[in-house]
Amino acid sequence: MIPSRQPLKGMRELYPPEKRVEEHIVDGIRGAGAAYGFEEYEAPVLEPLELFLAKSGTELAREQSYNFLDKGGREIALRPELTPSLARMIAAAGELVLPVRWMSFPDCFRYEKPQRGRVREFLQFNLDVLGTDDPSAELEVFLVLRRIMRTFAVPETHYRIRYSSRTLASAALGGAGLGPEEIARALPLIDRRDKMPGSDWESWVVETLGPEHGAAVVEYSRCDSPDSRWLERVAGGTTAMEEIRRFSGMLARTGIDTAAFDPGVVRGLDYYTGIVFELSDTGSGNRRAICGGGRYDDLVGLFGGRRISGVGFGLGILTLQLFLETYGLIPAGIASRPPADVFLAAFSEEQRGFVLRLAEDLRDAGVSVETDVSGRGLRKQFTLAEKRGIDRIVVIGPEETATGRVTVRCGAGREGIETDLASLAGVLG
Amino acid sequence: MIPSRQPLKGMRELYPPEKRVEEHIVDGIRGAGAAYGFEEYEAPVLEPLELFLAKSGTELAREQSYNFLDKGGREIALRPELTPSLARMIAAAGELVLPVRWMSFPDCFRYEKPQRGRVREFLQFNLDVLGTDDPSAELEVFLVLRRIMRTFAVPETHYRIRYSSRTLASAALGGAGLGPEEIARALPLIDRRDKMPGSDWESWVVETLGPEHGAAVVEYSRCDSPDSRWLERVAGGTTAMEEIRRFSGMLARTGIDTAAFDPGVVRGLDYYTGIVFELSDTGSGNRRAICGGGRYDDLVGLFGGRRISGVGFGLGILTLQLFLETYGLIPAGIASRPPADVFLAAFSEEQRGFVLRLAEDLRDAGVSVETDVSGRGLRKQFTLAEKRGIDRIVVIGPEETATGRVTVRCGAGREGIETDLASLAGVLG
Repeated sequence: MIPSRQPLKGMRELYPPEKRVEEHIVDGIRGAGAAYGFEEYEAPVLEPLELFLAKSGTELAREQSYNFLDKGGREIALRPELTPSLARMIAAAGELVLPVRWMSFPDCFRYEKPQRGRVREFLQFNLDVLGTDDPSAELEVFLVLRRIMRTFAVPETHYRIRYSSRTLASAALGGAGLGPEEIARALPLIDRRDKMPGSDWESWVVETLGPEHGAAVVEYSRCDSPDSRWLERVAGGTTAMEEIRRFSGMLARTGIDTAAFDPGVVRGLDYYTGIVFELSDTGSGNRRAICGGGRYDDLVGLFGGRRISGVGFGLGILTLQLFLETYGLIPAGIASRPPADVFLAAFSEEQRGFVLRLAEDLRDAGVSVETDVSGRGLRKQFTLAEKRGIDRIVVIGPEETATGRVTVRCGAGREGIETDLASLAGVLG
Repeated sequence: MIPSRQPLKGMRELYPPEKRVEEHIVDGIRGAGAAYGFEEYEAPVLEPLELFLAKSGTELAREQSYNFLDKGGREIALRPELTPSLARMIAAAGELVLPVRWMSFPDCFRYEKPQRGRVREFLQFNLDVLGTDDPSAELEVFLVLRRIMRTFAVPETHYRIRYSSRTLASAALGGAGLGPEEIARALPLIDRRDKMPGSDWESWVVETLGPEHGAAVVEYSRCDSPDSRWLERVAGGTTAMEEIRRFSGMLARTGIDTAAFDPGVVRGLDYYTGIVFELSDTGSGNRRAICGGGRYDDLVGLFGGRRISGVGFGLGILTLQLFLETYGLIPAGIASRPPADVFLAAFSEEQRGFVLRLAEDLRDAGVSVETDVSGRGLRKQFTLAEKRGIDRIVVIGPEETATGRVTVRCGAGREGIETDLASLAGVLG
């Protein structure tokens, strides 16, 4: 039987031009994180299913994950997200200097219906600060996000970091008369706010929670600032209120103009407890949030041992790529970048040994070199170099081996720069 | 229930110091491949099980792989190796400029008993040249291997690339009277040669294959050069013989002194058809081959369509790391490298805003900066910087904000270099 030429649906399969684009994005992000002292770590792709059942909620763990029994009869899962593994690693580490600033680029897996920006295997970027309750940690995380956007030259008008607070939502809705269970019912409704027309959403909320509580939730969702009068009335003087106002003030003083308070941000994951946020396109081209995150207070403590609070986010590499492509922010040259700096062509069979040694010398000097390995004639070597997009060619013939002088041509037949072998690497470098 | 703090056995979990070492190795390898024009690609972690059943042999595909039914009832597997996916991608690609020089760093999975250098989740390096039958491709692959070893300053006495040829084995054993089925039985025996004492192995071979054929296999296994008299007698004049001699001559002329002919190299994978090779430690510290590969003629063709021959190898990143560690070839500074170039400390709460802005300016200039995000006092900021191993500290106090002059100290309390803010990035860079 001939096996299929297609990968499984939604899997991450990248040919070199696509991989170069992904790498461009990953390198930019890595540089932004490293600027703040974030260090990379690596967690396993396979984890005990219980890890996600305990942390991510049942839907993500059981329905949306690839999970199965291993040969030892243990329930295991391909990670649908990284954070539970991070919490495990932090809990298991002996001595750690806090705060921990860690980042990672995990390959994650979710069994969902593939659509634009949503695939079954996806590379993610995760960044977390653990070991401080201070909102300076949130601020630093927002600075990293701004730096990532600047790295890719994204104008500030094109994206927004919307933030809110789960503690505030609880305080405000509690102040407006909702009990803990009603608040727990309300949050997922708020999370759906931007997924339907506003009036439909409001009727739905009122229908689901009853007129009084529904009206409170609608009021809450309309607050566009931590200083809103309604918020002051229901949650004024609470710690949650003070915290969000302090954070909002820090953002303003730091000049993070792309951040905006938005009570509609809730985030689906169960483990968030404080400030939550999303980075998204201000235009209509990309509906999915590029990044989402927040503060979690109890994640590490669930493994037993001391409580370590943290704040972090996950950012979809493909989602960011689609966003950058929407605005033409991925330079065209990246996908088509040639694989080598120079093509070294042999005039005839006799010069092949010389070419090979010269190529090695150039590589020693940091120049990447392609040579023919198929016994092609000179003309076909030119064609090969051209097809590769390598625009500098050096031909080695009997004269070159005798005199030690060579010509670097930009494309076959064109004028070139003459140089001696000792200076060649410098000319090409 | 408290979930376990341990990852599943044999999984790849790396704390930042370990990740830095892995990255050091990956970067070195990537640079060696790029010097020859190899381009990176990415294949899925999850593949249809049939892909490996068709390519890798039943044992690897079914017993040694993690495989399961997905929610659609399809048999899928976590890749135990990359090559079948590569072959699929080559077959599915429309236009490709041949030869293709591709490399990748796949995360692979095998359900095996973990031991030194063998884990269940492992990062591998794969490099392949496809689209030429010329042994110049094998030669280039050997050059890449030599360059990888040089990148890590491995003395040539510490490793050897042993090579052989499956075609030659068939021709020689055929010439010595073995039929195709007997040759197929003999190859796995030869593969076991170095895993037991020589005399035990010889008796075992004679016992298994009978005195006449057993003796031929023993004779073959003793040939230490393609010019051996016994080889000449049984395979002289065959294409396989000419090919291996030509290749051996190319290696000698190119000065690849670490390569040696060794008929004991067979490689377990079914798809190799021509020259096969292994790179291994010449000492006794690391028994497992660091890298293994060879030429495959029919891999791509199995997907239907045209035949594309290739040569490539897989190299275990952890295996290479253990090898380098054995010889002290991983600089101690890599694991303990500090996360940032400088620690910017605030003298008191008042300077925090200034510190934050200055830190951003330095990051814009390419300097990585850690600042406090936990509201620590000055002394505790010094302690933090010291624990992080960041040996350059700049304290911002009232004088610094007033005069714009700062001092870069190497460790708290020591003498420092005074400079103005405009020159600070230059001093630190």
